[in-house]
Amino acid sequence: MVTLINVFTVDPGNQERLIDLLTRATEDFVSRAPGFLSATLHRSLDGRKVTMYAQWQSIEDYEAMRRDPGSRPFLEEALTFAQFEPGMYSVVRSFAPVGA
Amino acid sequence: MVTLINVFTVDPGNQERLIDLLTRATEDFVSRAPGFLSATLHRSLDGRKVTMYAQWQSIEDYEAMRRDPGSRPFLEEALTFAQFEPGMYSVVRSFAPVGA
Repeated sequence: MVTLINVFTVDPGNQERLIDLLTRATEDFVSRAPGFLSATLHRSLDGRKVTMYAQWQSIEDYEAMRRDPGSRPFLEEALTFAQFEPGMYSVVRSFAPVGA
Repeated sequence: MVTLINVFTVDPGNQERLIDLLTRATEDFVSRAPGFLSATLHRSLDGRKVTMYAQWQSIEDYEAMRRDPGSRPFLEEALTFAQFEPGMYSVVRSFAPVGA
């Protein structure tokens, strides 16, 4: 399993537009791709970031989706008004509350 | 509920050191703080990032932990060899696989 944490930076006036675009991209395209497991979309409280946290069965599945021409219009539109910092991760471990 | 997505950038030779430090900080201090709900630590496959994804009951709980002198030595040590890009978010929505 691989975790993608992709941080988009925008002007606060464009945060809602980016959220709409990433919602459409995920509903219409990404969530139908082989190997897609889950995704959660986040809006930063300061209005300047939108972050997608997603899990895929493998890097190959994620890269196949990114190579598919169907994904290109969404990312190209996003890059006209947002910056994109991608990250590909494995989970080290999780922590639960202790005490209290 | 508030989601913290904190991205640390390091030289690949220091990725393991940062993972050890954040593990100690979370085990020994953060996971014992009031309002802490969960955290997951991630290592980037290129060796250049370490990202902590955490959920807290409120911003106030998170900020009280950050203000507590007990948290300072961990962050100060991390900042001697890593850069820190914090983000405070609310969840917009989650997506599940469609079809197939």
